[in-house]
Amino acid sequence: MEKLRIGLIGTGYMGKAHNIAFKACPAVFPLLASIECEMLAEVNQTLAEQKVKELGFNRATGDWRTLVNDHNIDVVDICSPNYLHKEMALAAIAAGKHVYSEKPLALNAVDAKEMTEAAEKAGIKTLVGFNYVKNPVAQLVKEIIENGEIGNIVHFRGTHNEDYLADPNTPFSWRLKRELAGSGTLGDMGSHIINMAQYLVGDINEVMADLQTVIKERLLLSNSQTENNNQYAKVENDDQAHMMVRFSNGAIGTLESSRIACGRKMGLTYEITGTKGAIVFDQERLSELQLFTNTDPSNRQGFRTILVGPEHPDYAAFCVASGHGLGYNDQKIVEVRDLVEGICADKPMWPDFRAAYEVNKVLDAAELSYKEGRWIKLSEIE
Amino acid sequence: MEKLRIGLIGTGYMGKAHNIAFKACPAVFPLLASIECEMLAEVNQTLAEQKVKELGFNRATGDWRTLVNDHNIDVVDICSPNYLHKEMALAAIAAGKHVYSEKPLALNAVDAKEMTEAAEKAGIKTLVGFNYVKNPVAQLVKEIIENGEIGNIVHFRGTHNEDYLADPNTPFSWRLKRELAGSGTLGDMGSHIINMAQYLVGDINEVMADLQTVIKERLLLSNSQTENNNQYAKVENDDQAHMMVRFSNGAIGTLESSRIACGRKMGLTYEITGTKGAIVFDQERLSELQLFTNTDPSNRQGFRTILVGPEHPDYAAFCVASGHGLGYNDQKIVEVRDLVEGICADKPMWPDFRAAYEVNKVLDAAELSYKEGRWIKLSEIE
Amino acid sequence: MEKLRIGLIGTGYMGKAHNIAFKACPAVFPLLASIECEMLAEVNQTLAEQKVKELGFNRATGDWRTLVNDHNIDVVDICSPNYLHKEMALAAIAAGKHVYSEKPLALNAVDAKEMTEAAEKAGIKTLVGFNYVKNPVAQLVKEIIENGEIGNIVHFRGTHNEDYLADPNTPFSWRLKRELAGSGTLGDMGSHIINMAQYLVGDINEVMADLQTVIKERLLLSNSQTENNNQYAKVENDDQAHMMVRFSNGAIGTLESSRIACGRKMGLTYEITGTKGAIVFDQERLSELQLFTNTDPSNRQGFRTILVGPEHPDYAAFCVASGHGLGYNDQKIVEVRDLVEGICADKPMWPDFRAAYEVNKVLDAAELSYKEGRWIKLSEIE
Amino acid sequence: MEKLRIGLIGTGYMGKAHNIAFKACPAVFPLLASIECEMLAEVNQTLAEQKVKELGFNRATGDWRTLVNDHNIDVVDICSPNYLHKEMALAAIAAGKHVYSEKPLALNAVDAKEMTEAAEKAGIKTLVGFNYVKNPVAQLVKEIIENGEIGNIVHFRGTHNEDYLADPNTPFSWRLKRELAGSGTLGDMGSHIINMAQYLVGDINEVMADLQTVIKERLLLSNSQTENNNQYAKVENDDQAHMMVRFSNGAIGTLESSRIACGRKMGLTYEITGTKGAIVFDQERLSELQLFTNTDPSNRQGFRTILVGPEHPDYAAFCVASGHGLGYNDQKIVEVRDLVEGICADKPMWPDFRAAYEVNKVLDAAELSYKEGRWIKLSEIE
Repeated sequence: MEKLRIGLIGTGYMGKAHNIAFKACPAVFPLLASIECEMLAEVNQTLAEQKVKELGFNRATGDWRTLVNDHNIDVVDICSPNYLHKEMALAAIAAGKHVYSEKPLALNAVDAKEMTEAAEKAGIKTLVGFNYVKNPVAQLVKEIIENGEIGNIVHFRGTHNEDYLADPNTPFSWRLKRELAGSGTLGDMGSHIINMAQYLVGDINEVMADLQTVIKERLLLSNSQTENNNQYAKVENDDQAHMMVRFSNGAIGTLESSRIACGRKMGLTYEITGTKGAIVFDQERLSELQLFTNTDPSNRQGFRTILVGPEHPDYAAFCVASGHGLGYNDQKIVEVRDLVEGICADKPMWPDFRAAYEVNKVLDAAELSYKEGRWIKLSEIE
Repeated sequence: MEKLRIGLIGTGYMGKAHNIAFKACPAVFPLLASIECEMLAEVNQTLAEQKVKELGFNRATGDWRTLVNDHNIDVVDICSPNYLHKEMALAAIAAGKHVYSEKPLALNAVDAKEMTEAAEKAGIKTLVGFNYVKNPVAQLVKEIIENGEIGNIVHFRGTHNEDYLADPNTPFSWRLKRELAGSGTLGDMGSHIINMAQYLVGDINEVMADLQTVIKERLLLSNSQTENNNQYAKVENDDQAHMMVRFSNGAIGTLESSRIACGRKMGLTYEITGTKGAIVFDQERLSELQLFTNTDPSNRQGFRTILVGPEHPDYAAFCVASGHGLGYNDQKIVEVRDLVEGICADKPMWPDFRAAYEVNKVLDAAELSYKEGRWIKLSEIE
Repeated sequence: MEKLRIGLIGTGYMGKAHNIAFKACPAVFPLLASIECEMLAEVNQTLAEQKVKELGFNRATGDWRTLVNDHNIDVVDICSPNYLHKEMALAAIAAGKHVYSEKPLALNAVDAKEMTEAAEKAGIKTLVGFNYVKNPVAQLVKEIIENGEIGNIVHFRGTHNEDYLADPNTPFSWRLKRELAGSGTLGDMGSHIINMAQYLVGDINEVMADLQTVIKERLLLSNSQTENNNQYAKVENDDQAHMMVRFSNGAIGTLESSRIACGRKMGLTYEITGTKGAIVFDQERLSELQLFTNTDPSNRQGFRTILVGPEHPDYAAFCVASGHGLGYNDQKIVEVRDLVEGICADKPMWPDFRAAYEVNKVLDAAELSYKEGRWIKLSEIE
Repeated sequence: MEKLRIGLIGTGYMGKAHNIAFKACPAVFPLLASIECEMLAEVNQTLAEQKVKELGFNRATGDWRTLVNDHNIDVVDICSPNYLHKEMALAAIAAGKHVYSEKPLALNAVDAKEMTEAAEKAGIKTLVGFNYVKNPVAQLVKEIIENGEIGNIVHFRGTHNEDYLADPNTPFSWRLKRELAGSGTLGDMGSHIINMAQYLVGDINEVMADLQTVIKERLLLSNSQTENNNQYAKVENDDQAHMMVRFSNGAIGTLESSRIACGRKMGLTYEITGTKGAIVFDQERLSELQLFTNTDPSNRQGFRTILVGPEHPDYAAFCVASGHGLGYNDQKIVEVRDLVEGICADKPMWPDFRAAYEVNKVLDAAELSYKEGRWIKLSEIE
């Protein structure tokens, strides 16, 4: 394969981020194929044509099904709102296209399972955009853990908090409507920290959750996507979510998410405690980690700040000098590298649909736990 | 009253800290009475006499009941292991002495209630050594909240993690035995963050907890206080504890404690989120807080680091210049100031036995929740 | 102009960084012209052809003069070692090409002046790669200063310290030889902090400097670019440089640079003090700044951490959400945007050759000051 | 000696701090003698008597000469304004009393030398209150350096910046008058960072300085100590001072002080670079240091935050648990411990008058350098 031809559905926030990565990735990493930005789909032809020009794609369509079935598309890249992921992915799978989808994969675990099984049966490649695990620092954390440098993991505390809905005057949007978004901050940002916990610690077995909608209704703008004509619409999902979890390897932990966490802009954080050390990370300082190991002399121990550099995973391709710093979009560049390598070399990709289905199972378990006020075993969720 | 005469029981870690505060407090704060270090009690007369000299007290006794009943003692200061608090406090109350006790107040809520009711009935003054709420920064946080500067509280995430038992070779001690210590890290350090949450946010209504003993047995030293002759003793309480809580004002939160948290030395931390701002605090940097308020212009918002200074509560007595920094023992000096003022001016003191009883109720609720796998209302606990 | 055709000389560290920016820039910013990576030059044809494939350029040459004189090149991009900048730039100017050059512009102020005057006479556009001023955070700092938010500047303390030569076993290279590199860390990294000081505070009038070569000789590798056959070569320029400066607006300051500063990886830092506030920045955390303003209530003052976001200069093009973080290469993307806009809209670009010449004057003044042990006025330097 | 009898002159800011230390020190450290707060002197008898009560001393005098000559005083403790240090110290020395003096020792090096020689001739003990070197963290830094853990020192960058005079409306005071205070921020706070540099790195050989008075006049309050009747008085010494220094061991460095540094409350900071590592310290976080050593594996290197604990110098006496934090006054407690031990065990104390004289020499060199625009060798200063 010389070219990997991309069909992008949706050109909003994430569509633009994907496009930056498609364009920059070949200049950063040596790749097995070139990336051809072949076609994009938007909600109508006019917008699609405008975006083709802006984003530097070859062709435009106002109908995503046209894109999915186009013979010159190798990968369908789904950057649409959550509720559309399932239909688009199943259509792409049916058309034999590899699928690169934004997260969360589906509105619930049942749908995610259906998508996963369809993809596996069709033998196509899938990758889901949990981009924070692509950060070279996250990869370094995994390397440290796998080397046993902090011993056996006994605790994980993770958050993904932001404040983009902290202002009660921020109007209603599709993200607040259950049938369009599924759960609230739980699925939106919580899914990232769940995925990170699974990446770094392993399977989650049991969940006990608490959810809360703090701002119970929001102003409905006239151009809202809903049919409701009232001035205010009811917020149908959670603003704050936290859960206690038990991992299959015996570790326990807490996971927390909020979309009303004043002051937090990119509050994906974690502290991982092992029997021999600990790691602390904050995505707002995404190019560094704090590492404590009790193998240092006892009077010289402390958390050390490691700045990511060329001796760490995937950094050298960006810059040969240490500590120069990577950004949000660079994570997507690594993700796109994984996409191209995974498809061209027929290598496993992670997180694929199955891994994303595991996230959806935790989300469903959390909602069920909240409803029933008890621990939910993941095995109770389909 | 010209002199407040102290009777100190126990001269270990906390006994020494109390003594530093007794000696320094009059040089820091103007007080309504002088502090007389009148008598101390230790486990035997020899040790007591040695300690009288070391600590600068007037008299020594090897029998704490002698101290409690001495006519020249105004305040009984209990710095003994947890399981002795109840008996000593009840004796002191019976003798009409004011009581200054280390925390947690009792091994369980039933005992704490008995102690509280006895004290209240006797009309004596009580103060419990949850010293972290005496930090001028904690007082400043309370002032900020009460002023409404961060709006209504919606979330509290607190930890009190240390690593003093992270090493599996650290031997067995009384703290690991249920009948001597009660719960493990939950009561030892968890009680501090529970007390802090109650101080800053208000009453806790419901608790859902998870507990875990990671290091299941430890070497029994020959001079151990237990009668067990085996080489290893079973650890009888929790190494790691976390809980989800619901406050009576509608806020939710998570509280966490660990005594095996590698790298954490004084890991009492909290993040308080309100509808208009947020506060972040870390006791390892005890003289500063992070404050975010959304009343700053939107493109100039950020967490600001406020260094405690003379414009904040209780700092000016220590130093007239800002940012010079207070230490752990300074918190005890504030606590002793409260003790002297509370008794001499007959003012309320906080946290008194009743406030400490509220902590014990949360501890019991957490243990019951863990056992039964469900939310426990505080009203279910006596 | 529809296309801006780039001719890149040099494909090492900086050449790669420029290429990433050329490829990503159009996906980040809407541009007045597309960027065509037309031709690259390397030291021989074989390497050039290999690099053309790697970097995604159209044509290759082993002779940079061919590139400079090619009719299909609009911009000559100079990423070669310092000593070649002058000859290449003068040739490009003579051929009527716009010039985008890495820093420092020249080995000394005399050369820089000649290059500047040639460019201005020819009416071509120039831009020099002092990329740290392109960081949206640096632009925000400038905005804050220009708004008067910190009052009049009274002090600037800047550093650019790294440790890439801290290990005495790191071998000799062209950077350590005066005729190839000019001064040492002074010109290499010191030029960045000088440029930053001029950008943020204004002209420097007087300089007093101290320089030191700590590691006086280094192992000469057999493939070294020098003709010397001895095993060790003498280091001919400074490892550590610091200077006191006086700005034309009355502020004073210190500037420091080191290439042997153990632990510093990207130690470009500054603290700017004004009559009403202060700003602190550290390039190792390139997406945030610390701002103190004395207009906050006196008991709520503190340095606040502002995370760069869409309300700040140039960030929104990268990401619509705050605090997601930019990286080193993103600065070059902004720089390339300035290049394209400057040329296509015939707008001024900064730092152009004249601004870079001002940096070279400070470098020369520092060396003269060290030699003569006295303050040097910039007016003493040609 | 069973008792060390203190005579305190001056009960302002520093007098109170000394008193806290006198009272707390015996409860923190086992001492060779008890400390008797015997007599204090204030500007008149009324104030002295009020202060005796407040501070818990035995006797009062309105005439410091009475105190100096009292037979029941062992140590004269000088906490008066700078210009009085010399007269008081010489009188105390003449009376055969040990002297504990606040810093800077004298208004100039000539006076400091006279005081030093008088003390040495009389064989009395002296200690000067450069308390920041008593911080256990500073002692730990010295230990790390002396162990060779960061190799040979090549660079020291130190600051002592505060903002207590940043507001131009802050009125005139004796600190701004040359005959009462000597130099400005240079001697006031700069003396601390000079002393710290000498403590940690060694002798300073050469100095090149720049000084600046930014706020040239200030409002004269009616109760001002000067005789001037104008509304505004001219500020006679420096607001900002910085210098480049060369140490006798070959290291170079920069030292900086400001009393108008907006946002800095206790900005004594330093970064020490060695051939094998580096140390960073900030007095605003006085209980921690950052240590980088290049003996860590290259892909695990980073500055580690060491929290001071019982394995480090002098901490265990304050608290047996790590990371609980020391405060400003605790440094004075260590200083007083040194005073008592030095006198009672006839051990050397540091910094004594001779060490403080070395600070005064650097201060004079800095002023001369500024005046003459050239490097000044310390040997040029008497």
